[in-house]
Amino acid sequence: MSPLFAGVDLGGTSIKAAIAGSDAVFLMSRSIPTEAHRGPHDVIERIGSLVEDLVDKSRADPSALQSVGIGVPGLIDVSEGLTKFLPNFPTQWRDLPVASLLQQRLGVPIRLLNDVRTATLGELRFGHGRTTPQPTMAFFSIGTGVGGGLALQGKLWLGPLGAAGELGHQTIRPDGPHCGCGNRGCLEAIASGTAIAAEGVRLMKSGLAPALHERVEGSADRVTVREMAAIADQDLRIKESLVDAGKAIGIAAANVVTILHPDLVVLGGGVAEIGPLLVDTVRQVIRDRVGMFPTDNVRVERSLLGDQAGLKGALALAVEPVELSGSDAVMTTREKRHR
Amino acid sequence: MSPLFAGVDLGGTSIKAAIAGSDAVFLMSRSIPTEAHRGPHDVIERIGSLVEDLVDKSRADPSALQSVGIGVPGLIDVSEGLTKFLPNFPTQWRDLPVASLLQQRLGVPIRLLNDVRTATLGELRFGHGRTTPQPTMAFFSIGTGVGGGLALQGKLWLGPLGAAGELGHQTIRPDGPHCGCGNRGCLEAIASGTAIAAEGVRLMKSGLAPALHERVEGSADRVTVREMAAIADQDLRIKESLVDAGKAIGIAAANVVTILHPDLVVLGGGVAEIGPLLVDTVRQVIRDRVGMFPTDNVRVERSLLGDQAGLKGALALAVEPVELSGSDAVMTTREKRHR
Repeated sequence: MSPLFAGVDLGGTSIKAAIAGSDAVFLMSRSIPTEAHRGPHDVIERIGSLVEDLVDKSRADPSALQSVGIGVPGLIDVSEGLTKFLPNFPTQWRDLPVASLLQQRLGVPIRLLNDVRTATLGELRFGHGRTTPQPTMAFFSIGTGVGGGLALQGKLWLGPLGAAGELGHQTIRPDGPHCGCGNRGCLEAIASGTAIAAEGVRLMKSGLAPALHERVEGSADRVTVREMAAIADQDLRIKESLVDAGKAIGIAAANVVTILHPDLVVLGGGVAEIGPLLVDTVRQVIRDRVGMFPTDNVRVERSLLGDQAGLKGALALAVEPVELSGSDAVMTTREKRHR
Repeated sequence: MSPLFAGVDLGGTSIKAAIAGSDAVFLMSRSIPTEAHRGPHDVIERIGSLVEDLVDKSRADPSALQSVGIGVPGLIDVSEGLTKFLPNFPTQWRDLPVASLLQQRLGVPIRLLNDVRTATLGELRFGHGRTTPQPTMAFFSIGTGVGGGLALQGKLWLGPLGAAGELGHQTIRPDGPHCGCGNRGCLEAIASGTAIAAEGVRLMKSGLAPALHERVEGSADRVTVREMAAIADQDLRIKESLVDAGKAIGIAAANVVTILHPDLVVLGGGVAEIGPLLVDTVRQVIRDRVGMFPTDNVRVERSLLGDQAGLKGALALAVEPVELSGSDAVMTTREKRHR
């Protein structure tokens, strides 16, 4: 009987789940609406049913299921398996023992991790991280917001709270736009899909993006990074705005390179679908701005896993436990050992 | 016979050296002028004599000397013990096998490391790092330039070239002033002693700093951060300029906190002598700008070792070898094992 693992990617709009062996090749996968308004216990119950159902449909022996990894969009307590603060979920999720509730439901160990750290683990084990031995990798997830994750010498770097690696909340412009996190001028406030699309709308409404206007019939609601990328060769101001976002991402990446000198910088999330324009801009900014040492060996790549990074990472999390880093984590581990 | 170690801090103007046991408590120390114009072989010869002389004067058995650690101001090849690029030294230092030349001279292993990484090691082993088990620490050395170093879970993080941790070359203002490294808007270009003093001179020459003018008798050459700090309560524009520098350092520190969630941020170098005004500003900026997780446990402190951090670190380097990080380093180590 081959061991079976489940991965879950809990999002504000949908819950995705997959089951697989330790190679993370999906045997079955499915997505259901989150419907967070129905309350956390309802959501957790449906995650449990979804996993059970996938195991059932795969015709695997139910007892083959070893563990479940779950990527969660927010701050969580990794050691205790609690959700601490999920920005897009009701407040009942504060200090909710999601891991133990689901463990009671499914009878196997449940591991929780922030969703972008989970995607980082996916990219590390099953994406670009696989081609370099023990890679040091910075992962940017550029979507509605900008999340991040770090792997140092082949190991996820989580910090004492599982919250390290927030590459999207570096200050890029000290007096820049306000960010949802409370800071000003974060990368997220400048180069998230939300920020890029807002600039696209502004350009369109200012009459500087006729091709975009035609494409979305003047509807601000329909302006997305994907639509902007599609007409970038016609509306040069749109192209500039995409390059400007790439430059901001490049500055954040150059800072991480200057600080950590990683082997790999990986760009994931929906905005990465802009493609070469983004990746080339980020590469150029790193060349231009990192002057303290040669960066020829720092690879900058678009995620190999695309929108599967989160689920693949959740499966990797099910396969292998992760460790917090920092002295608090060391002490927590020690305390636990003495219990 | 107690083992004896030597630490050397090679600077553009002076060479400092100390000998000590493994506790890095100086038995003897001395400083001599560098006189780099006399050429690298002369400098290396005088480093050798200086170490020999200190051992001799200490009346220790010369055979007690185990190894020498040297902090070098620039890019070096840690594995091979070569100097690669020293900005303030003649070009003859390019690819110079300093470690093997000194090893021939002194007959003991010689270890080379960038001077700020060396100071980071000093702070880690003998400064604030000592009070936290396996600390993750960011060290800023704010002097003529702004250098940096990182320790992750008690271990120096060097990257594949020994060049990681350049915290002073994060971009703080994308369109900011040109930096010696080729980038624009680096922390170093905004908040080094050089940059702060230049702003002091500008304020003085603009008639906005009468107390400073009186103190240095109107001489731009005499304007230093120390002089500015001394009259900061009289010249409010000078005080503002020091706070502005602190804010820039705070942004760089907040970025590192957001990325790595360290236990400790340590401010060293001459500019750190501004004292509470600087440390308090950096603490405040971290509180204001890190919004993704609580930072109550991140300590921000002024270096405990002050201008001894470099020598203490060089002694620590003599006591313990350091390892490069990143996959290149892993491969290099492997290759060496197979030789």
